[in-house]
Amino acid sequence: MTAFQDEYPEKFSHCFGCGKSHPSGLHLKSDWDFKGDPADTLVLVTPPEVYSGGVPGHVYGGMIAALFDCHGTASAAAFACRAEGRNIGDWNLPGSALPPVRYVTASLTVDFLRPTPQHVELQIRARLTRIEGRKVELEMTLMADDALCAKARMLAVRFKEHGETQKSA
Amino acid sequence: MTAFQDEYPEKFSHCFGCGKSHPSGLHLKSDWDFKGDPADTLVLVTPPEVYSGGVPGHVYGGMIAALFDCHGTASAAAFACRAEGRNIGDWNLPGSALPPVRYVTASLTVDFLRPTPQHVELQIRARLTRIEGRKVELEMTLMADDALCAKARMLAVRFKEHGETQKSA
Repeated sequence: MTAFQDEYPEKFSHCFGCGKSHPSGLHLKSDWDFKGDPADTLVLVTPPEVYSGGVPGHVYGGMIAALFDCHGTASAAAFACRAEGRNIGDWNLPGSALPPVRYVTASLTVDFLRPTPQHVELQIRARLTRIEGRKVELEMTLMADDALCAKARMLAVRFKEHGETQKSA
Repeated sequence: MTAFQDEYPEKFSHCFGCGKSHPSGLHLKSDWDFKGDPADTLVLVTPPEVYSGGVPGHVYGGMIAALFDCHGTASAAAFACRAEGRNIGDWNLPGSALPPVRYVTASLTVDFLRPTPQHVELQIRARLTRIEGRKVELEMTLMADDALCAKARMLAVRFKEHGETQKSA
């Protein structure tokens, strides 16, 4: 499968968390949650050991927020495409004249419920809760093994088609 | 000056963002905002270039959340000590029997207002908005040059004195 982030236009692909063109980033690969509820999205990631929390053996809070942020904006684009009857990435098909769909975070709230362990593959899921105009709202969860460690809510806003004129990036 | 994070007990000092014992972390150094409003706290940081956003030249959203998270919990501890007529770090004074004061994030909301530029020293400030029992609420801003790029709200919760029994870390 091609991940959502693999479809981003090159100029938006340099994010440390999820950009395919970043030389040493996390390269998050978000997709539909085919084995769970395919209406949701999923990313699997084991954060590098360097991103430890205050107490060794836990992931630091900033990394948890980062995972939600990158997975959330990718999911927002996928949800918006689905709502329009499009497939994310259709703009990359040969001969396509469709504009790319990219979202940026307007607001992200993370609730930290328990420590997130290191050396465990984390599962981050997103669910669409509202879509209206250029705004997408979604809810996310972060699971480690069978434990819910954190949850999040995001308001994401769509880049205008000529994204260079947008304030957010 | 000794930064707030320099006073953390060793067992809580391994955070990538702010732990003094982390071998390669950001080593954030939060303090009172002596040159501004000394009731507030301030940290100055220029994030490493590797933490770029999707569009090169900007800081990625996850790093912005991380800076708020680390500065916020350090500030919560400082605000709590001040409210009790203590100095943060008094537990490290020779002969002190005072317990360390450490806070963890329960909830963090980040509002992204405009892209945050790389290669600029960022100023992150925190202001106490409410303190009650083990809870501290605070508001934060992130400035780059003279531009307000992001703001945040945090609910932080105090570690119990025998922190090992707490769920959050």
